[in-house]
Amino acid sequence: MQKGSLLFSQTISPRFYETDALGHINNVSIAGWLEVSRIGFIASLGGSDDVSPNDWALVSLQIDYLKETFFGTDVELRITDASVGNSSLTMLSEIWQNGQQTVRGKATLVHFDATSKRSKRIPDSLRKQLQASC
Amino acid sequence: MQKGSLLFSQTISPRFYETDALGHINNVSIAGWLEVSRIGFIASLGGSDDVSPNDWALVSLQIDYLKETFFGTDVELRITDASVGNSSLTMLSEIWQNGQQTVRGKATLVHFDATSKRSKRIPDSLRKQLQASC
Amino acid sequence: MQKGSLLFSQTISPRFYETDALGHINNVSIAGWLEVSRIGFIASLGGSDDVSPNDWALVSLQIDYLKETFFGTDVELRITDASVGNSSLTMLSEIWQNGQQTVRGKATLVHFDATSKRSKRIPDSLRKQLQASC
Amino acid sequence: MQKGSLLFSQTISPRFYETDALGHINNVSIAGWLEVSRIGFIASLGGSDDVSPNDWALVSLQIDYLKETFFGTDVELRITDASVGNSSLTMLSEIWQNGQQTVRGKATLVHFDATSKRSKRIPDSLRKQLQASC
Repeated sequence: MQKGSLLFSQTISPRFYETDALGHINNVSIAGWLEVSRIGFIASLGGSDDVSPNDWALVSLQIDYLKETFFGTDVELRITDASVGNSSLTMLSEIWQNGQQTVRGKATLVHFDATSKRSKRIPDSLRKQLQASC
Repeated sequence: MQKGSLLFSQTISPRFYETDALGHINNVSIAGWLEVSRIGFIASLGGSDDVSPNDWALVSLQIDYLKETFFGTDVELRITDASVGNSSLTMLSEIWQNGQQTVRGKATLVHFDATSKRSKRIPDSLRKQLQASC
Repeated sequence: MQKGSLLFSQTISPRFYETDALGHINNVSIAGWLEVSRIGFIASLGGSDDVSPNDWALVSLQIDYLKETFFGTDVELRITDASVGNSSLTMLSEIWQNGQQTVRGKATLVHFDATSKRSKRIPDSLRKQLQASC
Repeated sequence: MQKGSLLFSQTISPRFYETDALGHINNVSIAGWLEVSRIGFIASLGGSDDVSPNDWALVSLQIDYLKETFFGTDVELRITDASVGNSSLTMLSEIWQNGQQTVRGKATLVHFDATSKRSKRIPDSLRKQLQASC
C-alpha cells in the first residue's frame, strides 16, 4: 500500500491499556486515535475561527481494520483528504505502523453551534483553508 | 423511526466517564458499546463453539450518530440483523434511548484462529444458529 | 475475605475492550468501575438535591488490586462505608468476582458548586441520608 | 508547588474524548496517563531485561487530584522517585499543566512471571539501574 497525500500527520505511542486480551490494540482505542487525528487536523488550521472540538459534531464514522496494530511501536495518524460541503466536512484517515497501513478511516463532521445544537455553514475563512489544504 | 427486528438486546447505563466536554456521550464510548452488543449477541448463541471474543476479528465498522446520547438514562443496545458468509459475520446494531434511536451501526467480523491469525470457516452449528436467528 | 456491610451494590458485566494484553481487566478500567459505583451510590440517595455527578469533584482515590479480575463473569461493585465531613464524602468500595474480592477502593469527593468551582457544605437532607445509610 | 526531582518525563496532549461533561479531564483518563508514565519510565531503563509491561503487575495506586486538568494544553507526566524492594517497585508521579501540578500519584508494582503469575525478585541489573536513577 502507498501512503495517501498528506494534509496532517501526528505520531503517537500506543498505550498499554489500549491493548486487549487478543494482544493487540483494541478496535475502540483505534476509534479514539481517529478522533485525535481529526481534532488535531482541524486545530492545525489555526488563525481561523471554529477549529475547536466544540464547533463540530461527528455524524458518521467508518473504520476498516486492515491489519492488527500493536503496543510497543509508534504509529502515525494521517489525514489524507478533506472535502467540504455547506456545513459538513469529510476526512479520510490512515494509521501506519512499521511501514504498513493498519487502519483506514472516513469521518463526516457537521459544523454546528454548540448552544443551539444546530448545524451552520462552515465560515469562509476556514473553507478556504480546507480547500487550499487539499 | 421504528425499531428493527430483534436478534439480541441488552440494556446498559451510560457511565459518567463516557461523556465528554460537549455534555453528551463521546463517539468513542459508542464504539465501545457496539462491541458490547456484538460480543453479547455472539455469546448468546451458547451451546455452539467459537462464541468467544477470541474467535473473531473486527474488520470493518460503520457508525451513524443519528442523535446525541446522554448520561442519566439507560440505553438499549440491539442487534437487528446478522448475515453469514463463509468466514464472515455482518451485524446491524441500533442504540435507543428515551424512545429514540440515537445510533446505527454495522460491523463485519471474521471468524479466525487466534493462534495462526488466519480466518476459518464459521462452524456449521454456529452457522445454523445464526441463520435461525434472522 | 468477608464482604463489608452493604450501602450500595451494582452488578456489571466486564467488557472485552476493558481487558489488556495480560488477559485480565486493565487497572484503568477498574478506576472507571469505581466511578460507576460512587456515582450510582450517590444517585441512589434520591429525593435529595445534589446527587448528580455535576455536584461532586473527586479529590483522592486509592485502589488496591488484590487479585486479577477477568472478562466473562459478572462483577459486583459494592459501597461498604461512607463518612461525611463538612463538604467531603469518603467512600469505601469493593469489587467481587466469583466469590472473591478482587479490588478495594477508597475515594474522597468534595461537594462543590460547578459554576464557581468552590466547595460547599453538604446539604443537611443529604447528610442525614448518608448518616442513616451507614 | 515545586517540581520533584526527575527520573523520567514525557509530554502528551490531552485528548478530547478524555474530557467529561464537567469540561475537564476525567479522573479515569488520569489513571491511564499514570500508567503511561510508569510503563514509559520502566521501558526507559533499556538494556535490562524485564522492562516490558508483561513483567509487572500493579498492586496499588493512589491518586491525588490537586487541580483540574484541561483539554487544549500539553501536560508533562513525571516520575520523581522510585524505590525498590525485593520484588516490588514503588514510583511517585506528578502531572503538570500550565506551570501547575494538577496530579500526584503513587503506585506499587510487583515484578512477576506472566506465566506462573507469581512474583519474582527484581533482577540485579534492573535493580542497579533503578537505584542509580534515584
